[in-house]
Parts: sequence; C-alpha cells; structure tokens
Amino acid sequence: MRASRFFISTLKEAPSDAEIVSHKLMMRAGMIKRLGSGIYTYMPMGLKVIRKVEAIVREEMNKAGAIELVMPFVQPAELWQETGRWDKMGPEMMRVKDRHGRDYAIQPTSEEVVTDVVRSELKSYRQLPVNVYQIQTKFRDERRPRFGLMRGREFTMKDAYSFDKDIEGMQKSYTAMFDAYTKIFSRFGLKFRAVAADTGAIGGSFSHEFHVIAQTGEDALVYCPTSDYAANMEAAEAMPLIAQRAAPTQELFKAPTPDTVKCEQVAELLGLKLSQTVKSIALTVEKEDANGRAVKENWLLLIRGDHELNEVKVNKVPGLAAFRFATEAEIREAYGTVPGYLGPIATKAKVNVVADRTVANMSDFVCGANEEGFHFTGANWGRDCPEPQVADLRNVIEGDASPDGKGVLAIERGIEVGHVFQLGTAYSEKMEATFLDESGKPAPLQMGCYGIGVTRILGAAIEQNFDDKGIIWPDAIAPFEVVLAPMGYDRSELVKAEADRLLAELEAAGVDVILDDRGLRPGSMFADWELIGVPHRVVIGERGLKDGNLEYQGRRDEAATAVPVADMVGFIKAKLGK
Amino acid sequence: MRASRFFISTLKEAPSDAEIVSHKLMMRAGMIKRLGSGIYTYMPMGLKVIRKVEAIVREEMNKAGAIELVMPFVQPAELWQETGRWDKMGPEMMRVKDRHGRDYAIQPTSEEVVTDVVRSELKSYRQLPVNVYQIQTKFRDERRPRFGLMRGREFTMKDAYSFDKDIEGMQKSYTAMFDAYTKIFSRFGLKFRAVAADTGAIGGSFSHEFHVIAQTGEDALVYCPTSDYAANMEAAEAMPLIAQRAAPTQELFKAPTPDTVKCEQVAELLGLKLSQTVKSIALTVEKEDANGRAVKENWLLLIRGDHELNEVKVNKVPGLAAFRFATEAEIREAYGTVPGYLGPIATKAKVNVVADRTVANMSDFVCGANEEGFHFTGANWGRDCPEPQVADLRNVIEGDASPDGKGVLAIERGIEVGHVFQLGTAYSEKMEATFLDESGKPAPLQMGCYGIGVTRILGAAIEQNFDDKGIIWPDAIAPFEVVLAPMGYDRSELVKAEADRLLAELEAAGVDVILDDRGLRPGSMFADWELIGVPHRVVIGERGLKDGNLEYQGRRDEAATAVPVADMVGFIKAKLGK
Repeated sequence: MRASRFFISTLKEAPSDAEIVSHKLMMRAGMIKRLGSGIYTYMPMGLKVIRKVEAIVREEMNKAGAIELVMPFVQPAELWQETGRWDKMGPEMMRVKDRHGRDYAIQPTSEEVVTDVVRSELKSYRQLPVNVYQIQTKFRDERRPRFGLMRGREFTMKDAYSFDKDIEGMQKSYTAMFDAYTKIFSRFGLKFRAVAADTGAIGGSFSHEFHVIAQTGEDALVYCPTSDYAANMEAAEAMPLIAQRAAPTQELFKAPTPDTVKCEQVAELLGLKLSQTVKSIALTVEKEDANGRAVKENWLLLIRGDHELNEVKVNKVPGLAAFRFATEAEIREAYGTVPGYLGPIATKAKVNVVADRTVANMSDFVCGANEEGFHFTGANWGRDCPEPQVADLRNVIEGDASPDGKGVLAIERGIEVGHVFQLGTAYSEKMEATFLDESGKPAPLQMGCYGIGVTRILGAAIEQNFDDKGIIWPDAIAPFEVVLAPMGYDRSELVKAEADRLLAELEAAGVDVILDDRGLRPGSMFADWELIGVPHRVVIGERGLKDGNLEYQGRRDEAATAVPVADMVGFIKAKLGK
Repeated sequence: MRASRFFISTLKEAPSDAEIVSHKLMMRAGMIKRLGSGIYTYMPMGLKVIRKVEAIVREEMNKAGAIELVMPFVQPAELWQETGRWDKMGPEMMRVKDRHGRDYAIQPTSEEVVTDVVRSELKSYRQLPVNVYQIQTKFRDERRPRFGLMRGREFTMKDAYSFDKDIEGMQKSYTAMFDAYTKIFSRFGLKFRAVAADTGAIGGSFSHEFHVIAQTGEDALVYCPTSDYAANMEAAEAMPLIAQRAAPTQELFKAPTPDTVKCEQVAELLGLKLSQTVKSIALTVEKEDANGRAVKENWLLLIRGDHELNEVKVNKVPGLAAFRFATEAEIREAYGTVPGYLGPIATKAKVNVVADRTVANMSDFVCGANEEGFHFTGANWGRDCPEPQVADLRNVIEGDASPDGKGVLAIERGIEVGHVFQLGTAYSEKMEATFLDESGKPAPLQMGCYGIGVTRILGAAIEQNFDDKGIIWPDAIAPFEVVLAPMGYDRSELVKAEADRLLAELEAAGVDVILDDRGLRPGSMFADWELIGVPHRVVIGERGLKDGNLEYQGRRDEAATAVPVADMVGFIKAKLGK
C-alpha cells in the first residue's frame, strides 16, 4: 500500500470529549470518526485493525468447531417477549416500529434468535453438540456513551452459542470456548487474564470474564500470584481476616460520639484503629406476607470499618435478592435513631442482622448504639446481642488469603473484552427449545454463550500499549506491520527506487507494509506513524544507501539499527516471525 | 470440512410464502432462515456463499484503488435533514428514537454520512480523487417484502462513493468502477449485462445498472446484438417506427363504436390493424399560476394502440415532472366525454397534446372522438387538429431500430444486482462538501456512487442457474467447491480411509471441500448436495476402489466419469483452474 492512496487523517489535538487515552489516540490517529453520541464510523486505518481482530477470532472459532452464521440486526419483538426480556431489557435496548406498526428490537444480543434458529433445526441428540457464532453489529443505547469504542452504542461483537444434550456436554463446550479465547487473546499479543465472574442479569450458572490488563481498566481483577485462582471483584470470595473469635475483654460501654457518623471519625475520636469498628448498613426488603399483604423487612448488614460492601454478594444472601437501601424514615422506625448511629444491639423493631465473615469473628468491637450521638465500644456477639447470620459481604483487598488456600490475593486493573457463560436451560426452557434424547424423550437444550467485544479490543489494546508519541500496536493487530519512510521520495531517484523495490519485495513476502510517499518532512512523517502505532519502521535515506544500509527501528526501540539493504527483507520477516 | 460438524438443514418442501425458484431453493437448501417479514438469518451454508461474494467484491474494489471503511447502521437524523431526504425518503426508511428522544435513521444508504466524513477530512485537490466503500447491512422497510433475499428488508450491500475535483475526474472514477464491476460479475461466473439507466430519485446525471440475466428477472433489458447499445426499459430510447408521415388518403369519419373503449376492441370492430389506432392518456398537472392561485393543466398523451406507455419518459417531458393521471371528473370537464373515447380532435377545454414519435408520423389513424360511443377514423395531423408536441413516450419493443443506428433491438430479462451513478454535486452542494482547488478557491466535490446488492447476488445467481434437482452454483461462489460422497463411510474401512485421505489432500491443495460423513443412504446424500448445488461431486465406493477408481460428476453432467484414485486431486484442481 502507498500512503498517497490510503485515507490518512491524523490530528494534533484530540477532541475535547475524548477522556481516556485510547479514545484520544484513536481519534488523533484517524482510526474512528464520531457520527453521533457513541456512534462511530470505522475509518480505513481503524477498520484494518478491526478486520485483523475479526480474522483471528474467526480462525480460532472455526478451529474450535464453531460454525459461522449471521443473525438479523432488526429482530421482531415476539421472540423477546417469549423470554420476558422485551420488558426486562429497559431503555438500553433500542426499539423501533416498522411501517405497519410492528415492534422490533435493534439487537443488543442474540440469545432469543439463536434459540429460535436451533429449536426448529435441531431435533435429535445425534445432531448435538452444535456451536454457532456471528461477528455482527450490536446496538446498546447506553445512558452515557463514552470512551470511544470502549463504551459506544453501536459496536461489533462476536457472539457464540453452544447447544448440548446434557450438562457435561455444556461444560465441555464451555471449556473448548475458554481454550479458544485463551488462544485468541494470546494471538492478539495482549497481556490478559481470565477471571471467574458473577453471572448477573444474563442468567445461568457459571461464567468467566477475559480482561486485557491495563492500569486504566474500569474493573478490579483479583488473583493469587502463587496459584491459578482469579476472579473479578464481584465474584472474588473474601475469607475472614480473623481466623477465630477471641473472648470478650471489655464491658459494653456507650461512648458519646456527637456528630461522628463515619467509622473513620469514630475511630479517630475514640483513639481506636479503624479495624476495630463495624459499619452498619440498613436495608429494606418489600414483600407480600402469606395473606398477600405488602410488608417490609428490616435487614442490617455489618462489615468492618475499613472494608467495602459488595452489592453483588448482598444480592446472593437468601432473602436479599431484591434488597434496597433503607430510607431515613425507615431507619428511624426500625432503629429509633438517625443514619450514622445504627448497630445490631437493641434495635427498636425486629431486624435481620447479617455480619460479614470478618465481623462475625470480631470481639470488643465498636458499633452504633441506635441512639443519636452514641456508639458502643466493647461490643461482643452472643453476650450483647444474638449471634448474627454470617455471609461474605465485602470486597476482597490486597493481602487477603486466597480462597484456594494457596497464597494471598493481589489486585490489578483490567478491561473486559470477553465473557463466557454457562446458561444451562435458562433460555431453552422459556422458548421450548428441546431435542429428543437417547430414550426418545424431549429434553431442553443445555446452552452456553460466549462474547468478544471486537471493537472494544482496539481500545483495550491501546490502553495497554501506548507512550507519549502514540499507539504501539502488537504486530498481530497493527493496521500495518511495517512503514517504509523514505527521506525525499519525491527528490531522490536512489531513495525512490529502493523504497519501491522494498515495498514490492515485502508485499511479495506477505508483509502488510505501507510506503509513505506523501512527500512529508521526516518529522511530520515519523510523528504520524508513531501516533498511528505501526510497530516496525524502515527509514530509507541517501546517506545510508551510499553505505549500503537502511535504518530499522521498532516502535519501542530507543534507537535505530543499521541493516544492510540486502538483508532487510529477511530481517523484517524474522522480526515478524514469518 | 466434515458434514457432521457443519450445520446442514435441507427441506423436502419449500414454505408456502416462497414464490420464486431462488427463494424456494434457498429455503430448502437451508441457506437462509426467515425471522420476520423480509428479515432472514444467514445460515452457515448461505453465509459461506455471501462471504465468497464479499471477498471477490473486496478484492476488485481494492484493486481499483477504493478504500474500505464502515459507516454506522444507526445514523443521526440531522445529516438526513441537511439534504432534505429525512422528509423525502418516506416510510421505506425506518426511523427510531433513542432514550433521549433523538431521531435516527436505520441506514438505507450512506450518501449523507460519507459526504459528512469527507467534507471534514478532504481539504485540498491534492487529496483527490478518493473512493471509499463499505460492505454493510442495510435496511429498507419495503411495503411488501418478498422473494427471500431478492427483495428483503434487511440485506447486505457494497456501497462505494468517489470524490473528485472535476467532472472529468468523476467520469474517470466512474469508468474505473464500471470496469471493476465488469470484473466482479465476470469472476462470479454469471451471465450479466450492463445497461444505461435512468438516474431516478437518487439524483445525478448518468448511470448504469448491472443485471444478472435470468428469464425470471423483474426487469426488461434492451440491447442491440450487433452493437454495444444496452439500456433498461426506462432509459431505452424508442425511435419512430414510421420514418416519414404519409399524406392523408382518408376523410375524417366519426364511426359509431358503442361499448368499445380499448384500442384492441376498436380495431376488431372496425376491421383495422391495432397499429392504425392511437391510445389517448389524459393527465393532470396541478400548479400555481403567476398570481399564486392553484390551477390545473390538461395534458393528453398519444401512443400507438399496440405500444406501452413509459412513465419515466413522461416524467421527462418539460412540464410533466409532477404529472398524475386525470380523474374521470377531470376527463369529463376537459374532453366532454368518458374515458375510452378521448382524442386530440375537438377537445372541450384547452389540452396540451403530446404525441409519441411514432404517432406523430402516423396518418389516417383512429382515435377517440371525444364523444361517448364514437371514434374517428381517417384522422390526420395538421388537417384535423394542430400538429402535436412530439416526444419519446413508449417502451421499446423487440425489433425497434437501435438508437445508435447499428441494428435492431432485442429484449431479455434481468435482475438488477449493481448500479453505478454519476452524482455530480447533488449532495456536496447541499452539504457544503467543498475542497480548495488549484487556485485556492473552494469548490464542491464531484461525487459518484456505486452499489452492489451482495445478498441479492445469491438469489440472482440461482434464478440463472438451477434445475429440477436444485441449485447449480458457479465454482467461484459455491458454498463448497467439491463434495466427497462416500458409499458406506461408517461401514467400509476402505471407503473411509480413501475419503479421509482425499479430504486431507484436497484441503491441502486449497480446495473448499466437504466430506459427507453423516452416514446417509446414497439417494438422500446425493439429493442433499444436488439441492445445495455443490458444483463438483466425487463418489467413493468399494467397487470402484477395487478397480482403483473414483467417480467424478459435475453438477450439470449427465453421467459420472471414472477417474483413477491417484489422478483425482489433479483432476479436481484442473476442473477448478487451481
């Protein structure tokens, strides 16, 4: 390719709405162009990267036995109504009416459609397992689209769906996809981590997220450096920090703590460590009693003053699936005091108390006294109040024991780019997607679903690989592998001849190379390609040529290396492993 | 590929809503699956064909210097409002509101977006010409979607847009695309014809359509077998069938023709040839007069009784761009009679008469007498009524003189699969897409646009290539090039070993081959692959193998050919030109 024939459009400054580095650099490098909020045109330079990502995904999916199809972007409402998601999906799913007034969803995902496809096509266990995938445009009407392709509204996703006759088969299909994902992200040349994840709204029983590691990542990844334990923050199990509860040594004492509502303030006022305090969080659950009357339950969650509540874990406590935080009026009614002074001892009304595992093993702790301006010190379970229900309620922290008992936990930041789920029969039962099993009886298909955020990979790769000059693409997904930078292409016959020869030879050797024949000054030319992030550069200059040399510089190299003209093609091929 | 691992789903019967052969065969072959009206999932077997079509299109577009990008599917209304097409497009363009109530179009085409992309990126004549294209999903909310992928609502299109600094450049870009299209359709292995076309609603000055030739085609293509003249029916110029008007030989006579309103009936009643009659078509044009008052004009079009009116040509008559057919009340008022008895002689009110070129050269013709139950015979221009305005108003017919004077016209049926347009500045002026020309002055970009109906190609290819067993794909776009049909794969070690060996060797030779390892009986297996339309079949049977032979049969061959085992890979490669 010649730069004069390609669409190159770099900017000195990023637009003001670009907040994060990958968004800024993609805009400056002319990879994407904003059309509307969260809606981008994939410009030629960006599309080249997307196509390379897609090709790797496609190859590995095919190798893993998955079969490609394409499902419609505009999907009739009826299927979404079958699973109840037409109502559940909320405003993120964009809806549209056709000229006859019929309802359609602009696809945010395709579980319903794919289940519909297979329920009419797969009749017998003999046809199973099947794994189908598509690489397709999706649309999610995010409330606040941002970060360019990282949280856009229109984006490209690879979504795959497996169908098995039993749970064992589903697990096998899941493992095959897990392995394929590992190969895919390895081939991208990115540092990544797979973590156990909560299954959340999509349903099902078991899932993993694949994250590209980046300091700027939105998600905290928990892992054990001395074992293979890894989970995201929602799913990482927090072990008790105190192995066994000590016997009480203090009397319960009601300490005056006026205007002291936060644990940090209480600890400071009383001269105690934050880790001796307990944070009380009041919840309300609205339900119907046996006679169908609306009733409210009071729940009090207790975590140590220096810990953070994990709401996903709260959701999993039996009875708390539909919790909400209590209002101030509800707090007054249940505890007889104001927020900031709650505690498990002597509540006004009946309260279900749930203590985090660490709190359950504390003794002589500090908590609110259910009286404005007072906290208890020397509080002890059993003696001062009943033993609480115990649950894992908090986020893990660095240094926590690994749940597998094989070390301590570390935390790093990541960007989610893939997600694999075991769905089981969540969709197949609602949509009556059955097959005839070995005994001739209908049974629901066991499903898995597997996503990769194709366009998101670009943002994540950049967040992991950039410097102050621009992007540094890994070879496998760079828009071009090599740029040829001739010094005076339009002035020197010698330079032009060598540049043209090298372009032709590298292209013949299967190298994805671009020759910058635009006649720019070296400074502008280098700046463009460093911004765009082409990983390998060859400078062709008259002076070097007279010595028989060209200059090679990798995008991360401090300095250039002289390479004899005759060796350059082999040198580049070796660099690229071709 | 092994059939047991692919998604094969053939049907004995086509669904009842499939009216045409390509729709029936694609449904029966499991290539597409209906999700909603005009909305289809591209099943694995169909997607393989689509991907091959896309690859050929992409290769030739790239060779022609076009650059790929991808524009959004969901497009903000503002751009469509800039060109006025937000209002003009009508219900075929599906519109949607996002969660904030903002308007968007689901893209039916991308002139607006691409013009927006280039107007901010292309500043100077030095950056021109540029040609960008995308292969993308489109949506058109057809009133009556039908014929499967031929007239679906969601479909895949390649759309390209060229930008030049002057008309000469635009014409050069247009020619380059015309040539690329010729290569693309040739590579598909389809019989096709490029015809001059009317530019219609999309605007611009000059265009050609590319049609796949098929007896079942919706469009009539006009061409001259002894020259390179070719046009579609709308655009084909009809020359007068009478070279020169003869002098009158008859008196004007008012013949009683009760209940005789059609030319065929009049000719029969009066014992004349249909070609002596003239058909009168009354039009109304509503406009404002110089004082802004609404007025109506009466127009009468005259074509020979055996000819068909061409409404596109009518539109081009000065003053008739906004014509409509007159109502019965309007006809009574202007002509003083009922439909069926109109004519140019002695109208009641003022009427603008336009005669087709052939009618203008007729003498002693028959026309309505503007009196119920009567026609004139022996009517003559000049003598019985004023000389008419003359225009080309009719469809050409077989045997008409070619407008280039190099022969006579023939007509065949075609399916439109591509369209190239010279748009000029129609969009760039409305959207202020300018560049600085050589003299430093802003000038509007000269545009061209170029479409290929990617998914439509499948339907068109089948309409051209099928028999009573099923589809007959050309090699280049067949889902698989070769099917290996083993007789008893699950029973005979000999057959299995040879089938596996041949599969591996053909795949290694770059042949797209599928081995049917499903264990079907030969009849069902053959029927499946004949229906699917794989162009080359190799049967592997024990009997043949004992003689050292395999059986080859091309999809169009009457009988099989024995080929020695050792020669088969070379034989297939030769068949495929590999």
